[in-house]
Amino acid sequence: MIIVMKSGASRADIDRICGRVEARGLKTHLSEGEDRTVIGVIGHDPFSVKDAFTHDPSVEDVIRITRPYKLSGREFRRSDTVVTLPNGLAIGGDEVVIMAGPCSVEGEEMLLETARAVRDGGGHILRGGAFKPRTSPYAFQGLGRAGLQHLVEARRQTGLPVVTEVMTPSEVESVAEIADIVQIGARNMQNFDLLREVGRHTRPVLLKRGLSNTIEEWLLSAEYVLSQGNYNVILCERGIRTFETMTRNTLDIACVPLLEELSHLPVIIDPSHGTGRWSMVAACARAAVAAGADGVMIEVHPRPDEALSDGPQSLTPQNFAALVPQLRRVAAAVGKRLAEPVRTGAGTAVAG
Amino acid sequence: MIIVMKSGASRADIDRICGRVEARGLKTHLSEGEDRTVIGVIGHDPFSVKDAFTHDPSVEDVIRITRPYKLSGREFRRSDTVVTLPNGLAIGGDEVVIMAGPCSVEGEEMLLETARAVRDGGGHILRGGAFKPRTSPYAFQGLGRAGLQHLVEARRQTGLPVVTEVMTPSEVESVAEIADIVQIGARNMQNFDLLREVGRHTRPVLLKRGLSNTIEEWLLSAEYVLSQGNYNVILCERGIRTFETMTRNTLDIACVPLLEELSHLPVIIDPSHGTGRWSMVAACARAAVAAGADGVMIEVHPRPDEALSDGPQSLTPQNFAALVPQLRRVAAAVGKRLAEPVRTGAGTAVAG
Amino acid sequence: MIIVMKSGASRADIDRICGRVEARGLKTHLSEGEDRTVIGVIGHDPFSVKDAFTHDPSVEDVIRITRPYKLSGREFRRSDTVVTLPNGLAIGGDEVVIMAGPCSVEGEEMLLETARAVRDGGGHILRGGAFKPRTSPYAFQGLGRAGLQHLVEARRQTGLPVVTEVMTPSEVESVAEIADIVQIGARNMQNFDLLREVGRHTRPVLLKRGLSNTIEEWLLSAEYVLSQGNYNVILCERGIRTFETMTRNTLDIACVPLLEELSHLPVIIDPSHGTGRWSMVAACARAAVAAGADGVMIEVHPRPDEALSDGPQSLTPQNFAALVPQLRRVAAAVGKRLAEPVRTGAGTAVAG
Amino acid sequence: MIIVMKSGASRADIDRICGRVEARGLKTHLSEGEDRTVIGVIGHDPFSVKDAFTHDPSVEDVIRITRPYKLSGREFRRSDTVVTLPNGLAIGGDEVVIMAGPCSVEGEEMLLETARAVRDGGGHILRGGAFKPRTSPYAFQGLGRAGLQHLVEARRQTGLPVVTEVMTPSEVESVAEIADIVQIGARNMQNFDLLREVGRHTRPVLLKRGLSNTIEEWLLSAEYVLSQGNYNVILCERGIRTFETMTRNTLDIACVPLLEELSHLPVIIDPSHGTGRWSMVAACARAAVAAGADGVMIEVHPRPDEALSDGPQSLTPQNFAALVPQLRRVAAAVGKRLAEPVRTGAGTAVAG
Repeated sequence: MIIVMKSGASRADIDRICGRVEARGLKTHLSEGEDRTVIGVIGHDPFSVKDAFTHDPSVEDVIRITRPYKLSGREFRRSDTVVTLPNGLAIGGDEVVIMAGPCSVEGEEMLLETARAVRDGGGHILRGGAFKPRTSPYAFQGLGRAGLQHLVEARRQTGLPVVTEVMTPSEVESVAEIADIVQIGARNMQNFDLLREVGRHTRPVLLKRGLSNTIEEWLLSAEYVLSQGNYNVILCERGIRTFETMTRNTLDIACVPLLEELSHLPVIIDPSHGTGRWSMVAACARAAVAAGADGVMIEVHPRPDEALSDGPQSLTPQNFAALVPQLRRVAAAVGKRLAEPVRTGAGTAVAG
Repeated sequence: MIIVMKSGASRADIDRICGRVEARGLKTHLSEGEDRTVIGVIGHDPFSVKDAFTHDPSVEDVIRITRPYKLSGREFRRSDTVVTLPNGLAIGGDEVVIMAGPCSVEGEEMLLETARAVRDGGGHILRGGAFKPRTSPYAFQGLGRAGLQHLVEARRQTGLPVVTEVMTPSEVESVAEIADIVQIGARNMQNFDLLREVGRHTRPVLLKRGLSNTIEEWLLSAEYVLSQGNYNVILCERGIRTFETMTRNTLDIACVPLLEELSHLPVIIDPSHGTGRWSMVAACARAAVAAGADGVMIEVHPRPDEALSDGPQSLTPQNFAALVPQLRRVAAAVGKRLAEPVRTGAGTAVAG
Repeated sequence: MIIVMKSGASRADIDRICGRVEARGLKTHLSEGEDRTVIGVIGHDPFSVKDAFTHDPSVEDVIRITRPYKLSGREFRRSDTVVTLPNGLAIGGDEVVIMAGPCSVEGEEMLLETARAVRDGGGHILRGGAFKPRTSPYAFQGLGRAGLQHLVEARRQTGLPVVTEVMTPSEVESVAEIADIVQIGARNMQNFDLLREVGRHTRPVLLKRGLSNTIEEWLLSAEYVLSQGNYNVILCERGIRTFETMTRNTLDIACVPLLEELSHLPVIIDPSHGTGRWSMVAACARAAVAAGADGVMIEVHPRPDEALSDGPQSLTPQNFAALVPQLRRVAAAVGKRLAEPVRTGAGTAVAG
Repeated sequence: MIIVMKSGASRADIDRICGRVEARGLKTHLSEGEDRTVIGVIGHDPFSVKDAFTHDPSVEDVIRITRPYKLSGREFRRSDTVVTLPNGLAIGGDEVVIMAGPCSVEGEEMLLETARAVRDGGGHILRGGAFKPRTSPYAFQGLGRAGLQHLVEARRQTGLPVVTEVMTPSEVESVAEIADIVQIGARNMQNFDLLREVGRHTRPVLLKRGLSNTIEEWLLSAEYVLSQGNYNVILCERGIRTFETMTRNTLDIACVPLLEELSHLPVIIDPSHGTGRWSMVAACARAAVAAGADGVMIEVHPRPDEALSDGPQSLTPQNFAALVPQLRRVAAAVGKRLAEPVRTGAGTAVAG
């Protein structure tokens, strides 16, 4: 941490600040510039120390120079984290994975129909929301635990591992029992009780980036999970909120190489939520793979215009099936490959 | 709802869309322009209908023309909602209320000291967080239930009603038992399970605006609470996230007259979180009152540079006491007045 | 400037960086922490030096610790800049000034009618655009030089000084000859050739903040003008671009106390552009004065629904006249006063 | 255009509004819903009409249903615009073009060295700024006309066409004489006098998106150029301003498929400005090509740590040469190909 003194700060001010720093068991190191003095603070640097000095009238600024996240950072672990599912599918290595399925689980029939389309089209993981966070209390809120059972059945029939969202700490147990990957949605990225709770389980966690959260805040939310002992965290970018109104969100594809530098955790891109327009999904999925993403998450619905949520951003099974070979070619162009398809009839790779 | 057809849409396209609308039990009304045809949809207009037509290749756009919130809107209730606390303090009428106190309850001594300073300075309600949402898992996370007890004691000694945050559904019961106003923090504005839970209680709810939530989303979150039967909702603007980095947030003071038009709910402004800099708090609090806010929420700490959270935005008791008469003058200038001060020794106005 | 070395940086890396710094005639000062070494750079700190070291693989970060603006900063000039117009009106002192008038000069008749309404209602300066920057090439683009002549006539008849926008360097001469204050619009805040050109004249400059420019960038744009010798710069906040769509912009009223700390230049708030909704203008104007602004800029149009631009945010003369006494009371409540009204018939205070 | 009446609007209100619409020579079409009446406005729909009705107390909202741009839209021209340079290079067809070079022309020697590296590495067009818009008046402002001469010489020696920025209308003539493509920088995207001026020339225009401009505003700025008769406009996305601070901007790669739908103009992506970090450039360039961009613009500097501007985002010649084959593979994966390299010694393809 560095304390920048105001340009008119007196000797007494500087001594006083140094005294206060040292009273906390930290060391100081003065650097006197032409214009102003800078105090380097040496030692463990808790959050509250920064705030303690900002208030002082002789202080211009207090600057942190270490990153606030530890376990989720590259400095903590040089090699990439690879999250492996019960059926052997690995996320974060050389293979690109495709998660696909409906926004919401709307019923057993439609889910099974979609799951088969996802598997037959070349998808690796089935997504589908049983608990749905909706902006309006009057919108469809999901089937809840009944929806979880439909996911179990879809996995049994298709062999696809499933990822589904959990919204509240008291449901973590029931979701983690069933899902292969537990999803934390964008609106809950800073629901810290929920993060701690999924951190106490061993089930892999897909942590979506909040609508307007920085990369640093996102890694700190991952840190909540990791610091509870669960290291199987997958990051998922799904678009951030900006001034642009033509798209639902602005998809930050550039986060892929940035996270590659900063963190060892796998990164998935969700172009469906990221754009909100199905016609943009294929191009953005290709871009994500070209940028080096470990996978994509795509909304697929057999009849998007009947979807109870997010129809406008869902691909039909036909469009989904047409996209997969495109992704295969782009993956090859950047030295990767799509994960092996799930074998038809391999409906035994249950999570539990 | 209005469906705008593409300029090249054929007669058959238009008929097909109308047929689909009518199949949902809604009526249609054609308006043929020089360039394109517009289909008015008449009848109840659920969220999912909009999405159902966006996907159609002959459709250019689907536009909602009714507001999605009902109970929180002016059209539902013309007169202002006034939230009255057990000690008679009314929020949302002609009087301006001042909520003040530390960011976190750090201990009983400091809380009592601050509470006395708030009351003596002219504040009406004591704020203080027992459960603290923190970006980093390594930051001080609050005293939890012990902190709630300190708030009870502070209320007993000073007579100040208390407002404190609840972060997770399972704690709503214990917080609502104790607090005069239950606060939903900015990061939880779209924690829908939590909103529903506070909606099931009768305790007034202070609903902070999310960091990057629109006014419409905010009113929809209020709608979650109201639709469960709890009509005592107070809105609190605390700054939104923008590109500006010199301040912690951008305080949207202009939301006061906008909400006055759109909603009947009271509006409070929090210039402490809204700016993150104590030196800006007084000016912004005055601006809030001049804009017509029903109150302000101000962080006060006896020794800001020792605060465990948010010291840089906290006023000292001296600065707080100097601000109150400024607010009194501004309130008078806009035809309002500060609420009556809590009588010293009136330490009996308990919530329960 | 401070260079933060990566945590694994070697002795040789540190020496190499220090050598490169010293080769530029700057001094270095090492501060070795537990985790990483920090190099303080002492001496004149040009912009390009920061970039020179960011690229180095052993460098974690390079942090500027001095503010990049000089002449527009408080450190350069402690006392407030007061801009005085030919008729004696002072902007930036204890008095609050009201600039008002139509968005565009649409013709002589409507301008004269509006100017009289502004003067009779208690305004001090007439605003009106002759050159109009419009998002669409198909929108009304202003009357150009003919519009300037109407402003001259309106000043002659009412005695109100005039402020009007200049959009391009080649028109600065003709606008500066006529206007009492030359306005640089939001879209031109970083039109650096234009800034330099108005800097070469002596006419006061009203510099609007760009739609998405930071406070620091704004002061650097002011610096362009000041560094050419024109110190009569007035800052005008007119709303920034955020994710919110219900209002045209988000009005950053909190910039008033922040600029008070950072700069000696006067600050004006424009709630008309800042909100885009006439019904919000009065409340925001009051808030601006309560926050300490040196004035407000208000759009007034005799028949807003016939305005060729920005009708929805314009006050009628009646609403304007009703607002002025409100501002007078708020100014008094914060220890200021409105400037003296222009005397009727005082139509001689020409700029030239 | 559609006028949505308030739910309580009376028959007289509706008649009055219809009368006002019809008085403008437009037709109306009523659609009476259960809750409120909607008036369809039929006929030419100028900008100012929308504003005329927003102000009315009986009107809830006025909604445009046609896009405000014409010439730059897909509806105006179904087939893609292909911009062809004097040396035959085509932008906007099946080939992907690479523009590369230094941020600023810093001198003849460095420019020639960079130009050779760009050509030898596989680039097609040389970029380099002679006139530089800089946030600070104290930063390097470019070599001006001398810089233009260096570009001419670099083109003569390498055969690479050149693209360079023009900042002010009075310099358009001299830049357009020399450059193969005239660039409008992000800060000038809404410098309407400048747009009109480049529209009057025939030289192709590279129009960068403003830091916080919407896609619609961008296409309207293109419209300024097209409506003057110059149809050779190339759009260039270079990152938008968001709340994220780790990168210089947020690169909106998703704009590529969106613009493909909305417009016939070619789209180039600039990952150097879009991220501000050289280590992210290659991944984002690959993503751009995978998304379907017509080309990329990359900053290359022989010694980035000595660059007078934007060193941190510049690739070395080595890194640039390593990127080109990656782009070739990705282009092939999406059914495109890189444009043919400029033949060595082909130094005769002058612009004039």
